[in-house]
Amino acid sequence: MFFRQRQMAYHAKPEKPDPIFAKMLQEPLGGQWGEISVMMTYLFQGWSCRGPQKYRDMLLDIGTEEIGHVEMLATMIARLLETSPVETQEDAAQNSLVGAIMGGARIEDAIMSGMNPQHVIVAGSGPRPVDSSGNLWNAGFMTASGNLLADFRFNLTAESQGRLQVCRLYNMTNDTGVRDMLAFLIARDTMHQNQWLAAIRELEEDGLEMSPCPSNFPQNLEKSEVAYQFLNHSEGTESAQGRWSQGPSPDGKGTFTYVDRPPAYTEDEGLLKPVDPRMYGTPPMPVPPAAAE
Amino acid sequence: MFFRQRQMAYHAKPEKPDPIFAKMLQEPLGGQWGEISVMMTYLFQGWSCRGPQKYRDMLLDIGTEEIGHVEMLATMIARLLETSPVETQEDAAQNSLVGAIMGGARIEDAIMSGMNPQHVIVAGSGPRPVDSSGNLWNAGFMTASGNLLADFRFNLTAESQGRLQVCRLYNMTNDTGVRDMLAFLIARDTMHQNQWLAAIRELEEDGLEMSPCPSNFPQNLEKSEVAYQFLNHSEGTESAQGRWSQGPSPDGKGTFTYVDRPPAYTEDEGLLKPVDPRMYGTPPMPVPPAAAE
Amino acid sequence: MFFRQRQMAYHAKPEKPDPIFAKMLQEPLGGQWGEISVMMTYLFQGWSCRGPQKYRDMLLDIGTEEIGHVEMLATMIARLLETSPVETQEDAAQNSLVGAIMGGARIEDAIMSGMNPQHVIVAGSGPRPVDSSGNLWNAGFMTASGNLLADFRFNLTAESQGRLQVCRLYNMTNDTGVRDMLAFLIARDTMHQNQWLAAIRELEEDGLEMSPCPSNFPQNLEKSEVAYQFLNHSEGTESAQGRWSQGPSPDGKGTFTYVDRPPAYTEDEGLLKPVDPRMYGTPPMPVPPAAAE
Amino acid sequence: MFFRQRQMAYHAKPEKPDPIFAKMLQEPLGGQWGEISVMMTYLFQGWSCRGPQKYRDMLLDIGTEEIGHVEMLATMIARLLETSPVETQEDAAQNSLVGAIMGGARIEDAIMSGMNPQHVIVAGSGPRPVDSSGNLWNAGFMTASGNLLADFRFNLTAESQGRLQVCRLYNMTNDTGVRDMLAFLIARDTMHQNQWLAAIRELEEDGLEMSPCPSNFPQNLEKSEVAYQFLNHSEGTESAQGRWSQGPSPDGKGTFTYVDRPPAYTEDEGLLKPVDPRMYGTPPMPVPPAAAE
Amino acid sequence: MFFRQRQMAYHAKPEKPDPIFAKMLQEPLGGQWGEISVMMTYLFQGWSCRGPQKYRDMLLDIGTEEIGHVEMLATMIARLLETSPVETQEDAAQNSLVGAIMGGARIEDAIMSGMNPQHVIVAGSGPRPVDSSGNLWNAGFMTASGNLLADFRFNLTAESQGRLQVCRLYNMTNDTGVRDMLAFLIARDTMHQNQWLAAIRELEEDGLEMSPCPSNFPQNLEKSEVAYQFLNHSEGTESAQGRWSQGPSPDGKGTFTYVDRPPAYTEDEGLLKPVDPRMYGTPPMPVPPAAAE
Amino acid sequence: MFFRQRQMAYHAKPEKPDPIFAKMLQEPLGGQWGEISVMMTYLFQGWSCRGPQKYRDMLLDIGTEEIGHVEMLATMIARLLETSPVETQEDAAQNSLVGAIMGGARIEDAIMSGMNPQHVIVAGSGPRPVDSSGNLWNAGFMTASGNLLADFRFNLTAESQGRLQVCRLYNMTNDTGVRDMLAFLIARDTMHQNQWLAAIRELEEDGLEMSPCPSNFPQNLEKSEVAYQFLNHSEGTESAQGRWSQGPSPDGKGTFTYVDRPPAYTEDEGLLKPVDPRMYGTPPMPVPPAAAE
Repeated sequence: MFFRQRQMAYHAKPEKPDPIFAKMLQEPLGGQWGEISVMMTYLFQGWSCRGPQKYRDMLLDIGTEEIGHVEMLATMIARLLETSPVETQEDAAQNSLVGAIMGGARIEDAIMSGMNPQHVIVAGSGPRPVDSSGNLWNAGFMTASGNLLADFRFNLTAESQGRLQVCRLYNMTNDTGVRDMLAFLIARDTMHQNQWLAAIRELEEDGLEMSPCPSNFPQNLEKSEVAYQFLNHSEGTESAQGRWSQGPSPDGKGTFTYVDRPPAYTEDEGLLKPVDPRMYGTPPMPVPPAAAE
Repeated sequence: MFFRQRQMAYHAKPEKPDPIFAKMLQEPLGGQWGEISVMMTYLFQGWSCRGPQKYRDMLLDIGTEEIGHVEMLATMIARLLETSPVETQEDAAQNSLVGAIMGGARIEDAIMSGMNPQHVIVAGSGPRPVDSSGNLWNAGFMTASGNLLADFRFNLTAESQGRLQVCRLYNMTNDTGVRDMLAFLIARDTMHQNQWLAAIRELEEDGLEMSPCPSNFPQNLEKSEVAYQFLNHSEGTESAQGRWSQGPSPDGKGTFTYVDRPPAYTEDEGLLKPVDPRMYGTPPMPVPPAAAE
Repeated sequence: MFFRQRQMAYHAKPEKPDPIFAKMLQEPLGGQWGEISVMMTYLFQGWSCRGPQKYRDMLLDIGTEEIGHVEMLATMIARLLETSPVETQEDAAQNSLVGAIMGGARIEDAIMSGMNPQHVIVAGSGPRPVDSSGNLWNAGFMTASGNLLADFRFNLTAESQGRLQVCRLYNMTNDTGVRDMLAFLIARDTMHQNQWLAAIRELEEDGLEMSPCPSNFPQNLEKSEVAYQFLNHSEGTESAQGRWSQGPSPDGKGTFTYVDRPPAYTEDEGLLKPVDPRMYGTPPMPVPPAAAE
Repeated sequence: MFFRQRQMAYHAKPEKPDPIFAKMLQEPLGGQWGEISVMMTYLFQGWSCRGPQKYRDMLLDIGTEEIGHVEMLATMIARLLETSPVETQEDAAQNSLVGAIMGGARIEDAIMSGMNPQHVIVAGSGPRPVDSSGNLWNAGFMTASGNLLADFRFNLTAESQGRLQVCRLYNMTNDTGVRDMLAFLIARDTMHQNQWLAAIRELEEDGLEMSPCPSNFPQNLEKSEVAYQFLNHSEGTESAQGRWSQGPSPDGKGTFTYVDRPPAYTEDEGLLKPVDPRMYGTPPMPVPPAAAE
Repeated sequence: MFFRQRQMAYHAKPEKPDPIFAKMLQEPLGGQWGEISVMMTYLFQGWSCRGPQKYRDMLLDIGTEEIGHVEMLATMIARLLETSPVETQEDAAQNSLVGAIMGGARIEDAIMSGMNPQHVIVAGSGPRPVDSSGNLWNAGFMTASGNLLADFRFNLTAESQGRLQVCRLYNMTNDTGVRDMLAFLIARDTMHQNQWLAAIRELEEDGLEMSPCPSNFPQNLEKSEVAYQFLNHSEGTESAQGRWSQGPSPDGKGTFTYVDRPPAYTEDEGLLKPVDPRMYGTPPMPVPPAAAE
Repeated sequence: MFFRQRQMAYHAKPEKPDPIFAKMLQEPLGGQWGEISVMMTYLFQGWSCRGPQKYRDMLLDIGTEEIGHVEMLATMIARLLETSPVETQEDAAQNSLVGAIMGGARIEDAIMSGMNPQHVIVAGSGPRPVDSSGNLWNAGFMTASGNLLADFRFNLTAESQGRLQVCRLYNMTNDTGVRDMLAFLIARDTMHQNQWLAAIRELEEDGLEMSPCPSNFPQNLEKSEVAYQFLNHSEGTESAQGRWSQGPSPDGKGTFTYVDRPPAYTEDEGLLKPVDPRMYGTPPMPVPPAAAE
């Protein structure tokens, strides 16, 4: 069960409207690696958790924090889309919305300059659950598997991709209000990367999971001869220079070898048999048409 | 530029048809964490790589290997969908496709039992680019950011989620041919998890990337006071028990603290201003209708 | 069965081309609340109707009318994308499509100014089944439930959201031809809002449906103590000021009460049990790996 | 900013596992009209609200309540997917996941009987952000327009479609634990339908909005002659029997008329002009190929 | 502008309900190659047509016919989902929807046997705009390019894939009412395949289009040395046996040659340059962190 | 099994960066008719092929070639997005990414001018698996049916739509490096159109398939009286002028006739029966609420 506090977690107030940047800022709100994705991911992982309660509680903590990040970004975008009331009044005389002023530019120019038109037409100057290209958020952007190691690795990825995007955005604006909020989000992503790195170690120290994930599948059932081989599928051997091609493997259970020209393990070329003629697929040789009933 | 060898990378031959399992096996082919996802991810990361060539070559190696894994799964599914020719002939007399035999069961029963109907209607006994629930593969399942640390963490996730799913599938069949191929895929996922773990270390040892990712964003621009704080957003403090709440952070740059009841850093409640009335949004108080032109 | 008349329902002729506005006008054609959505919604509701025939006939009437609205918008967009033949000829000498003229601007400038590039590359100056942000229309934008009250409420929404968007667009152009067509569509949306309001009343007067919908579920099976309570989930009590917090409820069957701090109705914290270890989920405590077979 | 309480809002405990019903119950969780849809809708409407604060607060109250409903459904689904530990142990001896027991049936049978395979393969016995057919939730299922009347009509629809679906589900199970939770959700939907009906009246009484929506577009700009006409597009006149075809319109601003055979308001047949030949569209008559450069 | 006639184009009445087959029949209604796809494709191609009017009229004719096919399939599906009233009454006594009778089977069994659950939960025994696997129809299933040859080839494909699927479905039922309707649809697909074949010839005879499409791009601008070469990218030369590897090309403008081991036409390996460090991509060698501002 | 050669198939090097054209060039990479679509289509058709091996080998040849085309386009786009290092350094002093230079224009201007923002924010100057409007590639853009005639017609369409789009793009740039690569792709599309035309003839000469497709469905089961009739669904008879309205049909099995005003073949108006009241659909007349349990 959830409750809402009146204040936002942090400031979300731009110096002035900027409808182009509002479009950019949709990426960390509704994009593949945005705040909706992590909010939904952490909450679902928490609600699905069958492991120790400290992990479940931690997941739901951070999931709840992320709802507040969605709130901050949504509010910031709404404010970046606010029109200037003074200029608006003058425009009203001309009775054309395209003459309204946003961030010192007319909406007409803003739209012609790459503003998301749905910010006007659909949302009437509000945020949208979409990415910076206008794609609708969908649940293929989140993950919850029931295995905490597999999921914490996803979470670490999400905080890395997310921090990367916000750092790029930081340099795409000079608005000190926007940069202030982004600096807060970048810091939280620093924390959350560290948090998932720590949680991964804790899982290992608790003896619950280790590499290769999932660790409780009996490894003797694997086709073990290919479990630590690097298979070179290109001309040239630049890929032999990395530590993935020799020495002990990070899971401590094998030794990397480098196979320059990997063999096929089978003579099978994948040829298929004909099937029921009523599939009407193309057969290997002509067949008389099926009889009518 | 790419070339194809006649043999498949490994055996892909079931003991006998099994249309229900064919549906299940769509997940590692066309699902969020399936082979199409990793094939596309690694190839795009390789084609986007602006870092050292050994990483680029390695990415394209494994991307090319994964095309072969897509091939194996597609072939296996096609064979799991093959009807029995003997029984088919008898059915032909009765002129009804629903009487054909798959894996010892009639197609009619198979469909009524949860077979993917598109395996018959759309693909005529062939594989589909979909997951086990029938959702079409889409590019929201892949990632390529230009930052190798952020991407290798994604890749490690993909090999973890993927291996997890194949391990689950291993236990859902007793067909020795299917299990043999899955044992091969599980072993390759073991290798690939190790490979990405090794590649992440190599990036750090090469001095190219480290935590927090991206490491070349100046960390003094962050809102540093919240960069190593765990914020408890729930009743209770189970989440204080993990190493994410105290001690040095894994990036070696900070010390975790635990904030039981996190404050709001602002008095701002997120209230918005009215905008241009021609947005026709609801204003805070009644306004006369805009004049006609 | 359907027939087509040569004339369109109304004029769809702009004064001059305007590729930027063509992109905007995709919203009422192929957006969430566009004409394709209502066309498909009303036709499917009609074909699914098991209620009195006057409703079925009315639904199919308006659904058929909407096909004509799709036609008008598609035609208008095609015309907004028409290049000027005179200028084109001159450009032809320069052999570059980017030099062609649209609405007084070169295509090059138009594309750089936020034109939908698919209007050129994919459709060759034709309309697209997409919204103003380029998202493909999909059937998640329509609804048909078999319950006429639930569906008429959807229809009333669609005509409200749709009219809102067209009113916004009306102010984003000064083209008298475009405005003329939009004025027609706005008027029809006025009619259709009234139509659904009337139809909702008729359902109630016919004794077929009433609030809460669906009305033929026995209300004594509800958890009745929470059926008329407003639960305040925020700090502060601004939400107590509305008529949703006190007095008789609009369905005439209850009295609103306001619960300032809603209780949890259970002590259950949602903890889950471990499951079959072959799910390879993370267990509450370490388990030995499953034995191999 | 948001906080989480340990207890759930209401009981979410089935008598026994039932993986088939778990699949059904995905609809009110992740379907078009499920709890994720209303949670996201109300929160975004609240964060976009530029009207009186009582509406904003009310929207955020109910949005926060809905997070708790998502939690209840997710938890219930996880429990419906729990395997029986006793039987599992026996199965473990046989080392096949397909032998595990769910709700008295083996997983094998459950999957063959229409269980969502992703509940096992992807989520390891956890809930999924999908509908009962397995489609991923996407943001095309939600709406926030900035106009409260248009949005409250959507909300009323959502609570009607949602209650309808839960009522149908109520009759598809005999599990008293499941029915108890559904009875709670049905009662809340009763409240929320009444709430939106009350809020719509309040908007009108506050003088902020009225029909036709949006009410602050000057109605004299409409093509007024068609603003209150019912246009019969079918053979027959069953549709003339409703109150939408005669008498005063519900907005109090017009009188319905019934037009049996609606005229075209134009002679325009929608013919288009040729465009720049470098679009390579098909022209009305043969043209010589463009010269090479 | 469109009008509706009361009668359907053809019979759509099953002998008896069959909810499993109702699910199958969604494929030709709402699938990639279903009737919604061709309806939308032909109408949009017609509304975009800038060629001779006979093509435009023909496209709109067949598009209008297809609306009626959507109607027939929607009606048939609704009837396949009808419950038996007699049995229902008895079940009502037991007060459980799962006890209702469909096609001689209880809904409970039908759902467990692969029925689409949304036919009950969402549509209340009505058709859905989805395919047989439950995926929502989307506009990526249709095409309108402005070039009639490219589009007629799509249309020929659609009628081929569509007829193939309906033929498969014909054999999956023994219901004479269903088969009667399918026999009608198959015949219309025969006509429409012939129609597009004829239309393609007519385009060529009219001198408007020919191969390669688009024919008015000056072919001397192509890289002509590879315009008629078959490039063998596999081991082995089975692909040399077809007429695509030798002899005159079907467009009459070249001669096929077979290149057993195709060369790379460049020494370029696709290596990329570093970019602005504020993209935070991984560089080829370590760089000092950007200075703070 | 697949291998990669170091060189690309052809040059992919622009004269200079051009982020706007990079966005345009996403269409032939990740659009409905782009190279990912044909790569996936041909590979899946090959892996599903149950016909003669020459077709299977040919499909896999061309599918493998297309992987190289994806590579070329991805590389070209990455290079069109490269920033100028000289200008960048100056900008670095100003510490704002928006000041970086792309193709002679600042990124800021490029983004305001219609650049895809995800090229910066998400991909850090790399290609994306999306179309020119930013939509994610999805498997609804590909087809593999098991019937080679139906599929080769799709392939012919894909090469026609694809060549059309690349021809349009050829005229939208003056960059000689880009045009050089496009000229190569256009030539390969010429080959591939011819290849599929030749393959279709070969199928017919081999006696494996012919029109109407699928040819092995017994045509006497069709409703033969409508198998060669053109049904005019519009006012006017322009559509009677084409060869689809008279004379022998292209399949050689019938004679076209033109039906000016097509009859309904049934009196059935599609009315539906009431169903189980626990569907809570609207019934034809009021019913008492179901009794509570």
